[in-house]
Amino acid sequence: MLRTHTCGELTSKHIGKEVTLAGWIQKSRDLGGMTFIDLRDRYGITQLVFNMESQSALCEQARKLGREFVIQATGKVAERSNKNPKMPTGDIEILVGKLEVLNSSATPPFTIEDNSDGGDELRMKYRYLDLRRNPLRQNLALRHRMAMETRKYLDSLNFLEIETPFLIKSTPEGARDFVVPSRMNEGQFYALPQSPQTFKQILMVAGFDRYFQIVRCFRDEDLRADRQPEFTQIDCEMSFITQEDILNTFEGLARHLFSKVKGIELDNFPRMTFDDAMKNYGSDKPDLRFGMKFVELTDIARGKGFGVFDDADLVAGISAESCAEYSRKQLDELTEFVKKPQIGAKGLVYVKYNNDGSVKSSVDKFYREEILKTWTDKFNAKPGDLILILAGEKNKTRKALNELRLEMGNRLGLRKPDVFKPLWVIDFPLLEWNEETRRYYAMHHPFTSPKPEDIVKMKTDPGAIRANAYDMVINGVEIGGGSIRIHNKELQKQMFALLGFTDEEAQNQFGFLMNAFEYGAPPHGGIALGFDRLVAMFGGSDSIRDYIAFPKNNAGRDMMIDSPSEISQEQLDELKLRITK
Amino acid sequence: MLRTHTCGELTSKHIGKEVTLAGWIQKSRDLGGMTFIDLRDRYGITQLVFNMESQSALCEQARKLGREFVIQATGKVAERSNKNPKMPTGDIEILVGKLEVLNSSATPPFTIEDNSDGGDELRMKYRYLDLRRNPLRQNLALRHRMAMETRKYLDSLNFLEIETPFLIKSTPEGARDFVVPSRMNEGQFYALPQSPQTFKQILMVAGFDRYFQIVRCFRDEDLRADRQPEFTQIDCEMSFITQEDILNTFEGLARHLFSKVKGIELDNFPRMTFDDAMKNYGSDKPDLRFGMKFVELTDIARGKGFGVFDDADLVAGISAESCAEYSRKQLDELTEFVKKPQIGAKGLVYVKYNNDGSVKSSVDKFYREEILKTWTDKFNAKPGDLILILAGEKNKTRKALNELRLEMGNRLGLRKPDVFKPLWVIDFPLLEWNEETRRYYAMHHPFTSPKPEDIVKMKTDPGAIRANAYDMVINGVEIGGGSIRIHNKELQKQMFALLGFTDEEAQNQFGFLMNAFEYGAPPHGGIALGFDRLVAMFGGSDSIRDYIAFPKNNAGRDMMIDSPSEISQEQLDELKLRITK
Repeated sequence: MLRTHTCGELTSKHIGKEVTLAGWIQKSRDLGGMTFIDLRDRYGITQLVFNMESQSALCEQARKLGREFVIQATGKVAERSNKNPKMPTGDIEILVGKLEVLNSSATPPFTIEDNSDGGDELRMKYRYLDLRRNPLRQNLALRHRMAMETRKYLDSLNFLEIETPFLIKSTPEGARDFVVPSRMNEGQFYALPQSPQTFKQILMVAGFDRYFQIVRCFRDEDLRADRQPEFTQIDCEMSFITQEDILNTFEGLARHLFSKVKGIELDNFPRMTFDDAMKNYGSDKPDLRFGMKFVELTDIARGKGFGVFDDADLVAGISAESCAEYSRKQLDELTEFVKKPQIGAKGLVYVKYNNDGSVKSSVDKFYREEILKTWTDKFNAKPGDLILILAGEKNKTRKALNELRLEMGNRLGLRKPDVFKPLWVIDFPLLEWNEETRRYYAMHHPFTSPKPEDIVKMKTDPGAIRANAYDMVINGVEIGGGSIRIHNKELQKQMFALLGFTDEEAQNQFGFLMNAFEYGAPPHGGIALGFDRLVAMFGGSDSIRDYIAFPKNNAGRDMMIDSPSEISQEQLDELKLRITK
Repeated sequence: MLRTHTCGELTSKHIGKEVTLAGWIQKSRDLGGMTFIDLRDRYGITQLVFNMESQSALCEQARKLGREFVIQATGKVAERSNKNPKMPTGDIEILVGKLEVLNSSATPPFTIEDNSDGGDELRMKYRYLDLRRNPLRQNLALRHRMAMETRKYLDSLNFLEIETPFLIKSTPEGARDFVVPSRMNEGQFYALPQSPQTFKQILMVAGFDRYFQIVRCFRDEDLRADRQPEFTQIDCEMSFITQEDILNTFEGLARHLFSKVKGIELDNFPRMTFDDAMKNYGSDKPDLRFGMKFVELTDIARGKGFGVFDDADLVAGISAESCAEYSRKQLDELTEFVKKPQIGAKGLVYVKYNNDGSVKSSVDKFYREEILKTWTDKFNAKPGDLILILAGEKNKTRKALNELRLEMGNRLGLRKPDVFKPLWVIDFPLLEWNEETRRYYAMHHPFTSPKPEDIVKMKTDPGAIRANAYDMVINGVEIGGGSIRIHNKELQKQMFALLGFTDEEAQNQFGFLMNAFEYGAPPHGGIALGFDRLVAMFGGSDSIRDYIAFPKNNAGRDMMIDSPSEISQEQLDELKLRITK
């Protein structure tokens, strides 16, 4: 080893010891008689001291070293006169007696500090320098720790990690595949997996009963902010289980991770049906860190002459604690907010339950104070609270009210990054109707099992069928989802028919899975958790990019290696491909 | 759970207990009054009993169940009258009181037994049935266990597992890349990584100091037997280390795996230079499970009038213990063996050191018994031993003698699958001269560091430069290899020049790595171990295919999912590609 210790481990108990450290120069201060260098490695920072009087040549040499030079320094650990209690190594310094420059460095294009002065593009291009910064280093260490703990937990429950192939087959259903031309099979292509879904089901047919994999997946989608063309998921499947077994096993995983990695002991996860989540929060991923559950006023608000409410499918609102004194300006801001095109409400009605017990509303004209009091009662509001009400078509109103609720949560500081409120959303609809194509689509995927008691509706009312499908939601973020699968080939055929697949299409795309189902498929189900998202949440961030070592930008480009790029004509010829422009 | 226990865990201590099992019907025997079913899951086999007298309806139902049906059975654990000591559950059986058929099965196309009657192609097509067989199930469980233990060991040494990207950039040097057309960047392609080599070096520049990854890699090569287009490696890199640190760390990993997974405690790994390996074994991956070290006779065998030896660059042989009584036929077989085109020797000379102390040779005409005795002395041969000698050009002769040595090892049963003899081969040449293209190629890769003391030869005698490169070899198989890297950008430039890269080519292909080296690259080095090969070796097999869940055949096809396959014209249009035939 070129070092005896790391830059993060020396303390006063090492005083007097001769040590060798190696690392990067974080900064250097020349005080005339003394030169101080902060030496950095992955583990911390240690102060090196060069004394002009006793070691003039060495000190001269040290003075010339620039930021990010790589050096090896040998010397004695000494007590600092000027201790720094903020650093683990702040009690000591190294009186350097020997110095070797292992490498020089050009001046970095941005500062290697916790808060860098580099812009996004620059930091992506020089990712190796950005990764030297503490926050990113800690993010990747967190990621490693979470992957280790995930594997330990699942291994302890007899799960086997089984690697599934990356060169698979393109299936037009769902998102767009990345394809890989095959040189040995002219004119044919592999596809990169969007998920190992069919392979994990095949593994259940093969009898592996508890499978997991922390695995890269690929989607060639137009990238929205914070989507990556390649991403990592914790992919799992179990046989001979019920939905309840899966929920318990994987909330167990989440609890294990919170406990081991963050020292947080979570309660059992509450379960909420999709219908309840939509009715009470207007979202299938409610943020339970705060209240403001929806209250519906449709029945009592209609028929009083206020046209907007009278014509509404749904009148519903939330009660914001202690906001009755919101100013005109604040209320206008909220109205502007809900009227933004992406939210789409036509307007906002408020009811102020004043501290003096009086009630004031933007619809005073139509509703007497007495009536408004019945509303505040419905909300269980207290004097000082502000009730915000939207109305219109049911689903649109719920969606808009969800956005308003989250906005109020943000304004009131109720969405604390260090508080974690998980839940399971269950009983999702099996199908979604698409008005444009006039057909049903699988809400989850075509292998999701309907609830046995709803199978009778397959002919009569497919839209009302509930699925044995579930999402794990934490703090309003969908961390993962899964379902109990169809293991009966007849039911699977009915499902494909319902989704408008011809037998031939179904056979062509999923034939190998349907063939496998001929040979004794066990009851099974599973889940996939978004690992990038989960790590980012543990790190207290909404953005996954800083939790991936080498992410791509929004155009799918790796700025550091400048990829994708052109390939040679020889490569194209070998693949029998021509580019058409 | 649809079961209370697995099919592998019930023993006499459970007798009297009511249990529920679920699994596949391995076989069923109808003895009139009783029907026995062997129920199988991942954990074992348990015998179910149906009694015609007490449960006639149930028994009738059980009789109709075919092989590989999936059932759930509830009943009491009872002591078997006819115990089977070969099975962990052989002391008990289940007196079934309740039976549910979870799924039926078509008749499998081959038997699900340890030794199946299915051919290779058939078993690949129905991989999910093949994977139900014990040997394959155990192989994948072994693979999981080895991956877990690898991670535990490296984690305990502060290595971080960091995921590197799969969509990277094509580099023409080396093997052929698989490429991935980018829809969002017209006419441009990503490439799938042949290894994360440059990324792990970038991570060292980024200060991560101890990196590993169990990672899929891709090579679009014409597949020789037992090569896969996608394969898995344990990829590692360390900073601030010497070669010795890497050897110690990773023989530590191998020892940890042997200890934890196989209960075998290995000694420290011997180190052998490339030159010694070639001289003594004719191979850079010698199998040390047995002796037969080469002995060179060039000096004492030449000049006695035997033209073959007189003209030879090298005369060398091996001594096979107790083989002096080999028959004419056996010796002819060996002669045929060495004359095969892929071995390429012109002939074989033998010297029998008979049990009576006399010496008999195929070259008696040229060498008196007295002379031949000096040969047997050189071999330290004992009466009863057989000496086999080849002669010719040095490298060719060594290569052929290596093959002969391995063949003799096989014939004498000296290559035992349960004996493990590891070593490090070190001091590889830096460069290989290619006579056809008349240029040097990097023996390892262009980032490998020459030995500091050999750098002076870069101008004068490049072929003689030794590299800080090393291979881990076990039982004659190269398990992995690595090197100390060049971290100095000037040396890296010289290296590229030596390999015939123009500055532009080097910049184009490896520019981002060379740019990174401008900003303080630490001294670093690493290794990559072939995980498929390592697992197969632990499993006692030469073939990796049975240690991969879903392998491809020799044409690179996945027989189960029938991939690669054609994609739609729409997909091609989106990618701006046309297939030329």
